[in-house]
Amino acid sequence: MRFAKGHGTENDFVILPDPDDGIDLTAGLVARLCDRRGGLGADGVLRAVRVSGGPAAWFMDYRNADGSVAEMCGNGVRVFGRYLLDHGLVSGPEFAVATRAGSKLLRVAGNGEITVDMGLPLVLGPGRGVLAGRPFDGLAVSTGNPHLACVVGEPLDGFDLSRPPLLDAGQFPEGANFELVRFVSGEPEAGGGAHIQMRVYERGSGPTRSCGTGAVAAAVAAAMHAAPGAARPTGTWAVDLPGGRLQVTLDSQTSFLSGPAVIVAEGEVSQAWLSGAEAVSTVIAGAPAQSSPAR
Amino acid sequence: MRFAKGHGTENDFVILPDPDDGIDLTAGLVARLCDRRGGLGADGVLRAVRVSGGPAAWFMDYRNADGSVAEMCGNGVRVFGRYLLDHGLVSGPEFAVATRAGSKLLRVAGNGEITVDMGLPLVLGPGRGVLAGRPFDGLAVSTGNPHLACVVGEPLDGFDLSRPPLLDAGQFPEGANFELVRFVSGEPEAGGGAHIQMRVYERGSGPTRSCGTGAVAAAVAAAMHAAPGAARPTGTWAVDLPGGRLQVTLDSQTSFLSGPAVIVAEGEVSQAWLSGAEAVSTVIAGAPAQSSPAR
Repeated sequence: MRFAKGHGTENDFVILPDPDDGIDLTAGLVARLCDRRGGLGADGVLRAVRVSGGPAAWFMDYRNADGSVAEMCGNGVRVFGRYLLDHGLVSGPEFAVATRAGSKLLRVAGNGEITVDMGLPLVLGPGRGVLAGRPFDGLAVSTGNPHLACVVGEPLDGFDLSRPPLLDAGQFPEGANFELVRFVSGEPEAGGGAHIQMRVYERGSGPTRSCGTGAVAAAVAAAMHAAPGAARPTGTWAVDLPGGRLQVTLDSQTSFLSGPAVIVAEGEVSQAWLSGAEAVSTVIAGAPAQSSPAR
Repeated sequence: MRFAKGHGTENDFVILPDPDDGIDLTAGLVARLCDRRGGLGADGVLRAVRVSGGPAAWFMDYRNADGSVAEMCGNGVRVFGRYLLDHGLVSGPEFAVATRAGSKLLRVAGNGEITVDMGLPLVLGPGRGVLAGRPFDGLAVSTGNPHLACVVGEPLDGFDLSRPPLLDAGQFPEGANFELVRFVSGEPEAGGGAHIQMRVYERGSGPTRSCGTGAVAAAVAAAMHAAPGAARPTGTWAVDLPGGRLQVTLDSQTSFLSGPAVIVAEGEVSQAWLSGAEAVSTVIAGAPAQSSPAR
């Protein structure tokens, strides 16, 4: 089984090329591949399957690290695009990738950064979350998944994101990602965009190094904070996350997420590991196999 | 640059085959390779260099994840042995590996488990550590590196190893690894060996999934606890760690550490990542590169 490992602002992925849709990718195999000590280690798996009849030549079968299916991942699809470009499986600078959330348009820039069209974020209105006993007012935003993005005036280092925020279950019946957002160099003029920092608590994952949809939600909250009366959030926003810098462009029709996407290594998953790890686990969990000492 | 990734009871390593000693393995490159999100991810790097004129055909250049040099690693040398065997670079069942702590004898068993002769552990005498405000009496043991191994009567799950124990700086001037040890099925007869569990706080690393020298120290402490008047710790000990099961055999001359050693995958590190990651970091840390939106 061939694989590649790559990351976008330290959101990392195992890519499995599977042009003919032949890999039986069970949840158990995904979880083993994503195990950071017993496997390759990643936030998720991106299986690449060839498709025809639409604008995209490849389908991104995205799985979370626990093996569950997800629709889309902003950093994942950018790393997926980098893999396709590196292998000549698509020709740039613009190309489409099929996902469970529909066909996504990507573009590679001259400096190698990859942009994905993330669609139109929806501003849902004000919301409130409580983190470590302290209330935060913010903006509820949907970027396909739900977010509460809160602009704050203090340095982000000081907040404790080790435990989940409390959210209004009426507003977010399935929970939400929670973003803390700060302007780096004063608040900008309306529509101008600016430089912000963001930290995130991801629903189900905890505090992560990067979150593509969260960066879009943070830019939306920052834009509406800078221009409270605007009809739509606009501007180009540099978003610094713990894992690096993304750029979000908001216009009246859609949003774009840009940033680095890097392939770290490629190779073959060991056949012995694929077929034998169950046996090893049994040995560990059950009675010890007697191995002779060296003398 | 070729690489393999493997693990022994979830102590994981990047192996770099370098027969002709040609790789300039800087501390920075080691740290980038071991980065679990921006690199391949591992507890350490094992560079394999061909040597001649001694009992061993290969030298294990072991580096910690932060790039520092270390002398030896019980799980690392077993994974190193698995790699050499898989590639026909040594012939089993017995072979030697050169390390900074001298030549180590390995043996592969029929079930694939690999045993390493860890040398004679030294019993240094009683010691005491304080974990989360509670004192623990134990046995100070040297297995090349210093340990305080404490036999306790309670389930190990309940202890908080998130913060380092306080140790006697007179007894351990350079610190020590700290092991909590419990008998699984009652205490054994003297010299018989038995089944123990262990959790560890590793000096400089924190609570880890596995520690080979710690497993030896735990077996020594358990053996002396079961037979307080014995001249030497003896017996064969199954040691359950969070990452799996190891086996330690103690005799009057030496100690042996046995367990699974698995290669997960092999491949090539991306040349673009090797040469380009510094540039990407500069982009992230400095001004953002302007990438055109997709439309």
